[in-house]
Amino acid sequence: MKKFGIVDTTFARFDMGRSVINELESLGTGFETIRYTVPGIKDIPVAAKKLIEEQGCDIIVACGMPGAQPIDKISAQVASMGIMQVQLATNKHIIEVFVHEDEAKNLSELSFLADRRSREHALNAFNLVFNPDALRKNAGKGLRQGFEDVGSTEEPKSGIRH
Amino acid sequence: MKKFGIVDTTFARFDMGRSVINELESLGTGFETIRYTVPGIKDIPVAAKKLIEEQGCDIIVACGMPGAQPIDKISAQVASMGIMQVQLATNKHIIEVFVHEDEAKNLSELSFLADRRSREHALNAFNLVFNPDALRKNAGKGLRQGFEDVGSTEEPKSGIRH
Amino acid sequence: MKKFGIVDTTFARFDMGRSVINELESLGTGFETIRYTVPGIKDIPVAAKKLIEEQGCDIIVACGMPGAQPIDKISAQVASMGIMQVQLATNKHIIEVFVHEDEAKNLSELSFLADRRSREHALNAFNLVFNPDALRKNAGKGLRQGFEDVGSTEEPKSGIRH
Amino acid sequence: MKKFGIVDTTFARFDMGRSVINELESLGTGFETIRYTVPGIKDIPVAAKKLIEEQGCDIIVACGMPGAQPIDKISAQVASMGIMQVQLATNKHIIEVFVHEDEAKNLSELSFLADRRSREHALNAFNLVFNPDALRKNAGKGLRQGFEDVGSTEEPKSGIRH
Amino acid sequence: MKKFGIVDTTFARFDMGRSVINELESLGTGFETIRYTVPGIKDIPVAAKKLIEEQGCDIIVACGMPGAQPIDKISAQVASMGIMQVQLATNKHIIEVFVHEDEAKNLSELSFLADRRSREHALNAFNLVFNPDALRKNAGKGLRQGFEDVGSTEEPKSGIRH
Repeated sequence: MKKFGIVDTTFARFDMGRSVINELESLGTGFETIRYTVPGIKDIPVAAKKLIEEQGCDIIVACGMPGAQPIDKISAQVASMGIMQVQLATNKHIIEVFVHEDEAKNLSELSFLADRRSREHALNAFNLVFNPDALRKNAGKGLRQGFEDVGSTEEPKSGIRH
Repeated sequence: MKKFGIVDTTFARFDMGRSVINELESLGTGFETIRYTVPGIKDIPVAAKKLIEEQGCDIIVACGMPGAQPIDKISAQVASMGIMQVQLATNKHIIEVFVHEDEAKNLSELSFLADRRSREHALNAFNLVFNPDALRKNAGKGLRQGFEDVGSTEEPKSGIRH
Repeated sequence: MKKFGIVDTTFARFDMGRSVINELESLGTGFETIRYTVPGIKDIPVAAKKLIEEQGCDIIVACGMPGAQPIDKISAQVASMGIMQVQLATNKHIIEVFVHEDEAKNLSELSFLADRRSREHALNAFNLVFNPDALRKNAGKGLRQGFEDVGSTEEPKSGIRH
Repeated sequence: MKKFGIVDTTFARFDMGRSVINELESLGTGFETIRYTVPGIKDIPVAAKKLIEEQGCDIIVACGMPGAQPIDKISAQVASMGIMQVQLATNKHIIEVFVHEDEAKNLSELSFLADRRSREHALNAFNLVFNPDALRKNAGKGLRQGFEDVGSTEEPKSGIRH
Repeated sequence: MKKFGIVDTTFARFDMGRSVINELESLGTGFETIRYTVPGIKDIPVAAKKLIEEQGCDIIVACGMPGAQPIDKISAQVASMGIMQVQLATNKHIIEVFVHEDEAKNLSELSFLADRRSREHALNAFNLVFNPDALRKNAGKGLRQGFEDVGSTEEPKSGIRH
């Protein structure tokens, strides 16, 4: 029985962990999910490490929503480096689902983006564990999570800025 | 008996450690606090590690007040990365309570911000140890420490810049 | 029998892993290749580490195509630092083949650049494993991968901006 | 018998190590000092680690004077991160005494600043080892090394820019 | 018998490794040199680590020539952090000899600078191993490698910009 860990924050303005779990449950069975909520993104890496080492998780989906200020960008970078270190210390994937507040034009787009990116990365995590061939078939295809895929250089998606 | 470690600095312009300890004591009993004061924020990580490994602390609240110059921002980033590394080496949370001098318009706002952020993060630390469900219920709620919460995208707080 | 690991992404807009494998197979025999596709560049380092530690790879070629936004540049830096850490944890080389989307003027140049850089770094990986003298003879020669070599200060290539 | 390690550089334009040792000797007895001079600031961390692990030092004072160019700022950051890592690998404090050339208006102010900061951080190192209460009493007091203390928000120093 | 490792790249536009080895051989005997050429600067750290751990080198001189683009500056920083990590993992010095292409006004100054910096750092490496007192005597003297020494604040070199 595989275990998916989901780490999320009270800082984020959208319940991304709920979207991840909801999507995972729609994709299949034969696994369980464990959720761990922390205050902010810099608290995520140790939570992920504890889920892997103390709870036996096989993979983590780490959800966060950095703010738009320069200081938030630094926090996001520190958090990403921590997430990297946990992966290398445990040999487990952690799919980072970060939505920056300034990626969206307004709150409604922010909701849409956070939900969709969470779901598309839930699928990535699912495939890494259960179906790596699905990823291999899409190598170099210009996939994106949240916004539209841009496509490959040979088959760019129409209507997308290149 | 749980142990909370509090690390703070002589560089800061407000006694944030006092606020943390005062708040923790108002939240409950059944734990003790240990305080460790260092010169500046880059001295915090090893102090936190010593509190965890040599004094048996279960969680750390790390208080610092970086200055407003570019060099201070670099110091804060190095300190944050050190705090990250200590968490990953010990599997213990360290709640980083940094107040940047330039977040406040004047000294009185700086006092207010430093006190309130210290207290709200003391509560986060308390919840991580004693009441993780309180955090889980607030996942994605747009909570902030010091300044007003901004709320979720579905329920934004009025009067807050989005 | 040497093992070359190739890590690539679904985010990239060109199938760089295919170019690497194709080039390696044109260079010789007596080795095998293993391919591992992940969503994005920050997922590459742990994949590389798993190929080395769990699959016995002797060297990795890590292919990625960071986007043109500032946030993509940060992701690339985090990925590079992770790739560095894996090398130091395993004492194995990982040749990083990153093509930044904004290095090329258009999609067709992007294809050309991604293919050529992948192939020239495949040769570098091959030489590191089978023919280190080929590298030593080119020390200080101003070699580039993808774009034209610039040459040494003593023998600069004509038509190259210095 | 406690051992203080002092690391300094030939790159610096002031003999900061001399100031540190002179100040330490004025503060008390019952300890010895060991000095290790390296070329530049990026050579400091491993020297500090060797003093701790091979010479048994209990604490290090690391003196450096980064230049004013962007590349010097990067070197200083890399050095700081190395100093951080050594502290976390050894559970020993390293007091970083960096004076940036562009902090001073002229060479005579640079001398003054380098000497005074070295001495005030020598006192910090001394207190960390022999008198931690002296630090605790100054928590949140806005102390600075080299330039004037700025004071706390409740008791700011007059004549200081806030 | 001491062993000096020299790591250099095919990316550099000057054969810095040759200058290092030539200079070392002019300084004395009783040691041997091992050279390891890699494609680019990010490949240097693991090569240095292998020279130390697999070939028994006592010290490394790491030569690289980062380009002038922002992306090259990031690569140099990642390489420097890797070099730092190797030093801390092995307790051996690695003297980083990086010449940035944009430090020189033209190719002939670039040659001069690369050669001279390589040689002056070869001497630093030699002194770290055989004559640490030579470094101690120059603490705080404002030494530079490649360009002219700037001197100490008490004895600045004439004709040098301060």
